[in-house]
Amino acid sequence: MNRPLIARVVGLILRIEAACMVPCLLIALFTRGPDVPAFCWSIALSGAAGFLLSGVKQESKRLQTRDGFVAVALCWIVLGLFGALPYAFYGISYVDGVFETVSGFTTTGATIIAAPSALPRGLQFWRALTQWMGGMGVLVMVLALLPSLGEGSVNLMKAESPGPISSKLQPKTSETAKSLYIIYIALTAAETILLRIAGMPLFDSLTTAFTTISTGGFSVRDASIAYYQSEAINWIIVAFMFLSAVNFGALFQVQRGQWKDALKSEELRTYAAITLGATALITLDLVLGVGKGVYESISQSAFQVVTLMTTTGYATADFDLWPYFSKSILLLVMLVGGCAGSTAGGLKVSRVVILYKGLRRELRRILHTREVRPLTLEGSRVDENTVSSVSVFFFAYIGIMVLCTAVVSFENVDLTTSLSAALTTISNVGPGFALIGPTCNFAFFTPLTKVVLTITMLLGRLEIMPLLVLLFPSVWKK
Amino acid sequence: MNRPLIARVVGLILRIEAACMVPCLLIALFTRGPDVPAFCWSIALSGAAGFLLSGVKQESKRLQTRDGFVAVALCWIVLGLFGALPYAFYGISYVDGVFETVSGFTTTGATIIAAPSALPRGLQFWRALTQWMGGMGVLVMVLALLPSLGEGSVNLMKAESPGPISSKLQPKTSETAKSLYIIYIALTAAETILLRIAGMPLFDSLTTAFTTISTGGFSVRDASIAYYQSEAINWIIVAFMFLSAVNFGALFQVQRGQWKDALKSEELRTYAAITLGATALITLDLVLGVGKGVYESISQSAFQVVTLMTTTGYATADFDLWPYFSKSILLLVMLVGGCAGSTAGGLKVSRVVILYKGLRRELRRILHTREVRPLTLEGSRVDENTVSSVSVFFFAYIGIMVLCTAVVSFENVDLTTSLSAALTTISNVGPGFALIGPTCNFAFFTPLTKVVLTITMLLGRLEIMPLLVLLFPSVWKK
Repeated sequence: MNRPLIARVVGLILRIEAACMVPCLLIALFTRGPDVPAFCWSIALSGAAGFLLSGVKQESKRLQTRDGFVAVALCWIVLGLFGALPYAFYGISYVDGVFETVSGFTTTGATIIAAPSALPRGLQFWRALTQWMGGMGVLVMVLALLPSLGEGSVNLMKAESPGPISSKLQPKTSETAKSLYIIYIALTAAETILLRIAGMPLFDSLTTAFTTISTGGFSVRDASIAYYQSEAINWIIVAFMFLSAVNFGALFQVQRGQWKDALKSEELRTYAAITLGATALITLDLVLGVGKGVYESISQSAFQVVTLMTTTGYATADFDLWPYFSKSILLLVMLVGGCAGSTAGGLKVSRVVILYKGLRRELRRILHTREVRPLTLEGSRVDENTVSSVSVFFFAYIGIMVLCTAVVSFENVDLTTSLSAALTTISNVGPGFALIGPTCNFAFFTPLTKVVLTITMLLGRLEIMPLLVLLFPSVWKK
Repeated sequence: MNRPLIARVVGLILRIEAACMVPCLLIALFTRGPDVPAFCWSIALSGAAGFLLSGVKQESKRLQTRDGFVAVALCWIVLGLFGALPYAFYGISYVDGVFETVSGFTTTGATIIAAPSALPRGLQFWRALTQWMGGMGVLVMVLALLPSLGEGSVNLMKAESPGPISSKLQPKTSETAKSLYIIYIALTAAETILLRIAGMPLFDSLTTAFTTISTGGFSVRDASIAYYQSEAINWIIVAFMFLSAVNFGALFQVQRGQWKDALKSEELRTYAAITLGATALITLDLVLGVGKGVYESISQSAFQVVTLMTTTGYATADFDLWPYFSKSILLLVMLVGGCAGSTAGGLKVSRVVILYKGLRRELRRILHTREVRPLTLEGSRVDENTVSSVSVFFFAYIGIMVLCTAVVSFENVDLTTSLSAALTTISNVGPGFALIGPTCNFAFFTPLTKVVLTITMLLGRLEIMPLLVLLFPSVWKK
């Protein structure tokens, strides 16, 4: 393992984190908030730790697959531990701070803060910014800014990008990272402007854009998006949430004018079909089951389906009060999640498609004993190692969910709460059902449960393997 | 597809079903029960249908893999449809009758009968007998009795036997089937005698042995095993439930005196470890959380863990009132189930072991890029097709559970009820939680839900693929 290089990468990440706290400090200074000292201390500590680590003497620039996984896992843990400092210096308990920060970076959006509107502006901005930083990936950001990491950089990208197959938009890793960030920034800017036009205050527009495009879901308002009481705002956010959970490879094609190719994407079509199907089913359930108006039902179900399927986690309605059929459909879309190569969490649509095709192939194998066709996705062959990785991932995902449910139920909360807590954290959604429904928060859990849920959020965002790799003793041997 | 041969197999199964109703008719006659005409009609109809089908002209004795799957699926559907006749003629609705019969044959043990003690003796016996017939497999029984099916018989066995790898105990299929039934009958006889000695009435002893060894869980008493209020009876049943969910290959080794080989089995050790671990955790939870006595806690948790892990589904305590941590452990063991090649349902321990090893291999692949070792189980290599089948099976299992949960929640029952209904039917356990807890039954569901749960039970018992194969249009083409 190339320890010096990993140390350097972690150091770099810490300095970037410190740099990202600077605008928050400026906002705190500008608004004369009580969070000025919190940011001063946090910047100093993170920056100092970053400089110390970066001083480690380098020997080689080679970064193997394994090193990529370890570096990414360590970076994300360190990001959470240091990113919690502003909350901690402000007076929130450290465990809560780490929970909130990891919920931010992993773009989960589960919160321990009952009234985010009561936080000072600087912290509100930091909260939204962690989601924006985590959305496209902090290491991807590093690669876009500093292409100097050399040969192994593709392994960092592989370990941090979500999805079964890591696609290269450009021949060079650093160019791919740049292209991704250009789309990411363009979407954020577009949404900010549209929200502003729709009447949202500027600060709200910017922070909401941060947390929409990253499919994060933190809001500066206690009632989340329901606060604005504006259909225009709701539909703008629905559109941008939907876009942000689309594979950025497809968005890249659109940007280049290759509309037709983008719309041919199997994953995109499946994703759109599930979104529409779930919205239709829930609309029917609300109209026929509860007797809500048709437009209200469409609007509410579309928002809630998109916010949960894209794993954003805003709320415009208390879906915990909806009929159980609607709730089970919502749980299903939370499990599936968005497209691979997007900012969304969950299993990812392409994985579900691969698993479904694997099932069909197995049935064909029984019917026509000799015939074994390779699986295809987006017109090209999926190699068997990927199929096997996807299956293993699915097992690990469900396994972690089940174990996490058991640990949470140790607090003697009902199954709906514990299961939805496990699902919402591993899928990086945010809210759950019952005690952690859209009008509630995670503050009441014991510190142990918060730590377990924090780890589950990291497992979900990093797609499990990088963190599990850390558990192998051989990784730590010289 | 060899349609004439499949028709003949289905006809054979119907005649066997009719023959198995004869002892029930005798009991009905002996007890002068109101169920005498019900059995007369049912025997006449099943027998007639069986003879009609068996008259189909045979052309070839070849039975391919696909034919085996189709034959097994059709046989089990027909068994359910005709096995429901005694209930229907007695006056229970046909949908309920099919639910109860399929719950019997699949050894699920979920019931729509609130007071089984009020049923006439003949029907009580039929209810227990369906479980005993389904436990080891009805087609395996055919193979043991009539080895004349020839070349393709191994494909019938493959499609009906549970587990990822179908092991051959003897070189000939019919010999394997016979060996299995010898162990099966010996266990049933031993339990009947021990229960009788422990003070259970003879009729109860025999029917309880039928439903223990098949890991079925039907009881002739309304309060299930709790009725007998006897620690001796409880522990006898725990021991036989545990044995019945052991791979019959291992029991075969024991029968031949190869104790050491049997105890070396990886699956058996894992199964025992999970059982002990779950019992210990729940005992702790009951002692520390609820303040129950230590012996009572051990006894109750051992019984409930074993009855749910082996997917039997008796009850000696209302575990629905236990703390949520205990309940989530129970849900976990229901999902895992017993060993492959036993009468138990669930995912099967060996599948979980293979999936876990697949995950470990994936992590090793990340750590040491070049090294890809084959998976091993019980000391021998598991071929990649099997690993892939196991993964596909896991996906299909979870997928069906999720869809079934959504359909059940359409009745607007809470998530605990709908999820545990899906889990308990696909794992062939019997009771669930909340509205279908151990003191409740399935009678209140609408006919649609009952049909869906009936199909889910069949999917669970036949391990999904045989029924899904029927959905392929190419199967029905000439």
